[in-house]
Amino acid sequence: MSAVISATSAVQTAAFNWPRGFCTAVAAAAIKKQGRADLALLSMPTGAVAAAIFTRNIFAAAPIEISRRHLKESRGHATALLLNSGCANAATGPRGLANAQECVDLVARSLGCACEAVLVNSTGVIGVQLPLERIAPVIPLMCARIPDCADGGELEPFARAIMTTDTMPKMSSRTIQCGDCVIRVSGVAKGAGMIRPDMATMISVLATDAAVDAATLDRILRAAADASFHRISIDGDTSTNDSVFAFASGLAGNCDSALLAQAFREVACDLARMIVCDGEGFERSLRVRVTNAATRADALKVAETVASSLLVRTAITGGDPNWGRIIAAAGRAGVAFRASDLTLTVGGILLFANSEPINMDSPARINAVRAAFNGTHVEIELSLGADMSAGTAAAEMHSDEFLSCGLTTEYVRLNADYTS
Amino acid sequence: MSAVISATSAVQTAAFNWPRGFCTAVAAAAIKKQGRADLALLSMPTGAVAAAIFTRNIFAAAPIEISRRHLKESRGHATALLLNSGCANAATGPRGLANAQECVDLVARSLGCACEAVLVNSTGVIGVQLPLERIAPVIPLMCARIPDCADGGELEPFARAIMTTDTMPKMSSRTIQCGDCVIRVSGVAKGAGMIRPDMATMISVLATDAAVDAATLDRILRAAADASFHRISIDGDTSTNDSVFAFASGLAGNCDSALLAQAFREVACDLARMIVCDGEGFERSLRVRVTNAATRADALKVAETVASSLLVRTAITGGDPNWGRIIAAAGRAGVAFRASDLTLTVGGILLFANSEPINMDSPARINAVRAAFNGTHVEIELSLGADMSAGTAAAEMHSDEFLSCGLTTEYVRLNADYTS
Repeated sequence: MSAVISATSAVQTAAFNWPRGFCTAVAAAAIKKQGRADLALLSMPTGAVAAAIFTRNIFAAAPIEISRRHLKESRGHATALLLNSGCANAATGPRGLANAQECVDLVARSLGCACEAVLVNSTGVIGVQLPLERIAPVIPLMCARIPDCADGGELEPFARAIMTTDTMPKMSSRTIQCGDCVIRVSGVAKGAGMIRPDMATMISVLATDAAVDAATLDRILRAAADASFHRISIDGDTSTNDSVFAFASGLAGNCDSALLAQAFREVACDLARMIVCDGEGFERSLRVRVTNAATRADALKVAETVASSLLVRTAITGGDPNWGRIIAAAGRAGVAFRASDLTLTVGGILLFANSEPINMDSPARINAVRAAFNGTHVEIELSLGADMSAGTAAAEMHSDEFLSCGLTTEYVRLNADYTS
Repeated sequence: MSAVISATSAVQTAAFNWPRGFCTAVAAAAIKKQGRADLALLSMPTGAVAAAIFTRNIFAAAPIEISRRHLKESRGHATALLLNSGCANAATGPRGLANAQECVDLVARSLGCACEAVLVNSTGVIGVQLPLERIAPVIPLMCARIPDCADGGELEPFARAIMTTDTMPKMSSRTIQCGDCVIRVSGVAKGAGMIRPDMATMISVLATDAAVDAATLDRILRAAADASFHRISIDGDTSTNDSVFAFASGLAGNCDSALLAQAFREVACDLARMIVCDGEGFERSLRVRVTNAATRADALKVAETVASSLLVRTAITGGDPNWGRIIAAAGRAGVAFRASDLTLTVGGILLFANSEPINMDSPARINAVRAAFNGTHVEIELSLGADMSAGTAAAEMHSDEFLSCGLTTEYVRLNADYTS
């Protein structure tokens, strides 16, 4: 029996370990570089309920195509996940598909499971074939090294193995006390969407030892991603290989699904923040929060438009209190609101209301505004006001937010100077 | 009587003069800097049919609000246009509106015309009030200096006076032989949308001495802008002050409207190209052409997505033949097409077809591809192929294109280093 304790006390930050029922191994196959782990295997010896969100890009990579099919054929179950860096295996045609299938077959044979119980993804340069001759001999050796880790090993080796341009491993973990059960939710991620040409893609793996059915896990995963990975942007480009996987081993028992959802959301939000703050050329992050919108979609659209504006993002990099760019970006978001209803605060300081800039005569106030634009993290809040013409009550107003980072010369340099 | 001669022979490039019925004066009012012309007046002493396209930004500047109203009240007629740089007069509330109105009143009094015959726009920093105390005394003096120029003076002084961060004046002109009439279409523009925080906005003024009614001029202007200004991007940000004005004095007589439309389109396309190639930090331009789309809107959406992708734009800056980014951007444009139908050529070289990269084994071919990515102008062409499933005939396929430029460290530096 599980008593639902209040969310704040029930969900707690945990050590960076996998939940029970998950074990990992990594290996170096010299896919792009010598001597660095570029293959990572997550094994679920007792099986797991599985869910995933894949890129909606038309040029979804070959491994995405296979994983999507396997997840459907297995009705949301999996025994292993194979990831590689150094090559995206995207835009590679039938040969790319055959190569990804061969990797999956090798894992299935080595672990003694069905092919459709193996999921797979790749990250790296687009339009280049996988060097199967170097990968194939390594897979069985890696599978043989899978330890017996029913208690869950450390997250870090796996998190490190999937790092590409990331400067630090991205990990997060929570435990939930559900009656007598202690449930763990852990996650790892690799760095932000298409920051570097040869190291594209964000990939995240979330895992729990709670017992949950496939439909519930899918719902929990989508809600968590919606609050996190779907609300961040580095450069607006969506990779051919973007994916978030979720697995539940069930070894720790049942858990209240609202608490489980909260833990997934918190872990996903941690990872999303880490991705933004570890983007190539990162100097400053910004969060744009939009309140009092007519619909939540409106709030999100304005928040994303402001957070993605190159002019806002360069101003943030420069620590420039050029708030006119924020207003201008909000005004072109394609969302209907009255200009006179909008209020803008940055770092809690009111800058614009009733169609006019707020008086900037006091030097102390000007310094406070400059300081608000000059932190490592800049908080922008826009209220779109009540739409009185539509008779909308304040209680019906909606809010949402979006996370991004300043656009830096370093970002441009890294992305322009690459030569293949 | 006007005989319609074949378009290519009838529409000819012309010297950079205004058509008959247009005269200009410029003045320095120290709006932002001392000693530089920051006011520009276009006078049409015999009156002109007028049309305009204004920004759709919710925070449209005060002068835009006035011009929009005047154009409506006058049913598409105008006698003067006043432009200023150094201050956008946007997000300035009731006081900003009163200031813009005061400028208009001064022009109307000085020229002896109705207020609603005067149009106005501003460009510069957002959220700052116009220094009316410095502008007001200058306007009557400037109006008094308007020369008698029934034959049309040079474009250059006006084009220079509206320059902000532009490095060169942007002008274009065409003449049309229509029977016995020689019609002129001339245009000027100022630099590309929100490149610099304190010098935002693109403004263009197109003028002809053809006789044309307001509805026809409006239609011709919209078609010309659709083919030019609506198909370029520097940073994706839309200013609070973007505007394109068109005027027709009628002094040169009637003209075939198709020829007139062609001349407007050619002038507008010249100016749009100049805007892209004179953006801050400009190094390389790119044109993305999409063919064989199911609809023209689909073609435009894919073209704009690819041309606006930060990863494509940084690759172009680096001269990097990283074509995977082009495919990935096309695949996330939100347009339905089959991955296997897409072909990609850059500089006429086929890089991707039938879901696979085209063989890159020959060093000569690799060098040719590198050269195609390394020019001052890069031509990208994507064919989305025929959608056989919908039974669409080749003749029903559509194409469109979009113009942009490489994203450079200089662009970021200029936009980040500004301090107000």
